[in-house]
Amino acid sequence: MAFHFELDATDTTTAARAGRVRTSHGEVLTPAFMPVGTAGSVKTLTPDELSAAGCDILLANTYHLSLRPGVETVRRAGGLHRFMSWSGAILTDSGGFQVMSLSPLRTITDEGVEFRSHLDGSRSRLSPEDAIRIQDGLGTDIAMSLDELVEADTPPAEVRRAVDRTVAWAGRGLRERARLRETGAGGMALFGINQGATDAAERRRCFEQLGAMPFDGFALGGLWVGEGRSLGLEMVEHDCAMFPADRPRYLMGGGHPVDVVEAIGRGVDLFDCVLPTRNARRGTVFTSGGRLVVKNAAYANDPRPLDPACDCYTCARFSRAYLRHLFAAAELLAMRLTSIHAVHHMIRLVREARQAVLEGRYAAFRAGFLETFHGGGTLQPPHGPAPSPAGA
Amino acid sequence: MAFHFELDATDTTTAARAGRVRTSHGEVLTPAFMPVGTAGSVKTLTPDELSAAGCDILLANTYHLSLRPGVETVRRAGGLHRFMSWSGAILTDSGGFQVMSLSPLRTITDEGVEFRSHLDGSRSRLSPEDAIRIQDGLGTDIAMSLDELVEADTPPAEVRRAVDRTVAWAGRGLRERARLRETGAGGMALFGINQGATDAAERRRCFEQLGAMPFDGFALGGLWVGEGRSLGLEMVEHDCAMFPADRPRYLMGGGHPVDVVEAIGRGVDLFDCVLPTRNARRGTVFTSGGRLVVKNAAYANDPRPLDPACDCYTCARFSRAYLRHLFAAAELLAMRLTSIHAVHHMIRLVREARQAVLEGRYAAFRAGFLETFHGGGTLQPPHGPAPSPAGA
Repeated sequence: MAFHFELDATDTTTAARAGRVRTSHGEVLTPAFMPVGTAGSVKTLTPDELSAAGCDILLANTYHLSLRPGVETVRRAGGLHRFMSWSGAILTDSGGFQVMSLSPLRTITDEGVEFRSHLDGSRSRLSPEDAIRIQDGLGTDIAMSLDELVEADTPPAEVRRAVDRTVAWAGRGLRERARLRETGAGGMALFGINQGATDAAERRRCFEQLGAMPFDGFALGGLWVGEGRSLGLEMVEHDCAMFPADRPRYLMGGGHPVDVVEAIGRGVDLFDCVLPTRNARRGTVFTSGGRLVVKNAAYANDPRPLDPACDCYTCARFSRAYLRHLFAAAELLAMRLTSIHAVHHMIRLVREARQAVLEGRYAAFRAGFLETFHGGGTLQPPHGPAPSPAGA
Repeated sequence: MAFHFELDATDTTTAARAGRVRTSHGEVLTPAFMPVGTAGSVKTLTPDELSAAGCDILLANTYHLSLRPGVETVRRAGGLHRFMSWSGAILTDSGGFQVMSLSPLRTITDEGVEFRSHLDGSRSRLSPEDAIRIQDGLGTDIAMSLDELVEADTPPAEVRRAVDRTVAWAGRGLRERARLRETGAGGMALFGINQGATDAAERRRCFEQLGAMPFDGFALGGLWVGEGRSLGLEMVEHDCAMFPADRPRYLMGGGHPVDVVEAIGRGVDLFDCVLPTRNARRGTVFTSGGRLVVKNAAYANDPRPLDPACDCYTCARFSRAYLRHLFAAAELLAMRLTSIHAVHHMIRLVREARQAVLEGRYAAFRAGFLETFHGGGTLQPPHGPAPSPAGA
């Protein structure tokens, strides 16, 4: 198997780790931030722009791709890497989260999920075995086990039932991969997903069973769904303390810069989140100095880049004034340029975190990051809000 | 003055010319195709993508930029080149065409045009002198004289009045530039625009006056507005025969590949057109084999690039199947990738035309181009229309 994980360093005073995941599509340095390529592209960006930002792994959504263009089209194109012209690693989700959040009608049974497509209403089913076969058909490097996600504030009995189902589906997914491997397929890594919402005892009970299964890595599921940062981070600390040190740990869906820095300090290795790029397309970016709403009129004559401390293409070449104008004029280039910055910024953040772990100074890195991020020194226009001659 | 035009060659059996325009933002090889950067960006593309396509000059719209972000914002940013981070040459139109086509209410008098902004309804005026001052404020390399455009099928008396006004405004624009130059500004070149619709006698009468004025180049105005290709080309031939050989000739708004190749053969040097990029954003591109509607389901499993004969980034890296998927999924990357091809394709076309002129074989080049373009050899899917597994 091409998949291999090794730790280069563990921090001295925090639980932060620096490692590397080897896949048949290159090495992934951890901690890693995975941009989300929902429908076979990280919105507005080319593969080369991702590579230029230092990206070595991205996430693709199984649910979206299996509905459109369909696994068969991707397979005929030579797999997802070739289809989208991406030579780095790909992690796919199981499709379960999107089925549960996007399908207008869905029924969950012990067997799997029945749902209607949000595109055309057609009926489909997704079993734990289907999830593995579909991800294998896409040609992913890292597949995720089908799990059952519950919302925040779900009653304990339902959380318990979802945990039991998640554990049962995990075993079925592993058996399906074993079956595929007997046919020469199923070469991808497979991660199990720990569930239990924000009930620490349930998360422990879940992992007592999952942890005994031969997964290549483990994910923290059911978090960053509305429970709030401090409770979420409490669960991260709780799960990471149970997870084995020799396998990668993936916090699903958490990707605010503060969450990333805090979760790395608690032992997480992998992140994905649409927040940085979705915000960017709407005119808001994270910078080293915090959150900047570049589409605001206050920046109409601001000659500075989004983030003076950033070395991305956008910050090297374009002013806030120009970006603000592009947003005001609804020019698509606006979304591209802020997306380039957003991906670059997140990947630089995890790279700097990695370096801090290697040098045994993660606690100081985290303190410095939080101080700068909340300080907001570069966010205000240089001379107060400038008048906008032509209005919005 | 930085502006200079020289001819490298004139074809032996056609009126095609190969030349170069020197500006303070670099040299422009002619024949040249100018992508249109309406609001300060060529839609979806970065300046580097334009440069990579061989682009050395683009067109920007004075009307749009003066309404938003406003000349003062562009001036404060250091001019349009710096604002949009474009180091090549820029030609701006006078704003007149957009005023006349976009403003919901406009009144034309001998003095100029009164209009309402299509953005917020606010009232503005544009005189021939304003047009020069605004273009100078934007920092353009080549400015256009304010002219009066008439629609196809305008009665002769109105055509005649528009010609008289265009000639009067041309003189006023030149005087305004002379006045600016006395103040150290107004360094840009200024082109006059010949009018007269499709009335050859009126176009001659117009040019008898314009041609006596010290313009740096001349444009063919009032064409490609619905009169049809053969009548349009007749007027092109007519105008080019009158225009002086030592100044560049610009066909405004014509940019279909066939129009470009035919007009070059009649002596035109400069083209601009939104057609190739606008079509591209809607899923249709020009290729060496003709027009290809890549968003069609027929291409759902077509592994070939848009144009096997093209060496642009898109054709080097992505299949029709992937592009078709991106359009079906409404991914913005679709519009980017087809726009890259569209600009690259048009610029390669004029470069090949230039080479043919230099080698005295333009007639053969034109014949070969038309045969391949209308042959459509590469447009059909390899094995007939393939089924689209996921519909849409």
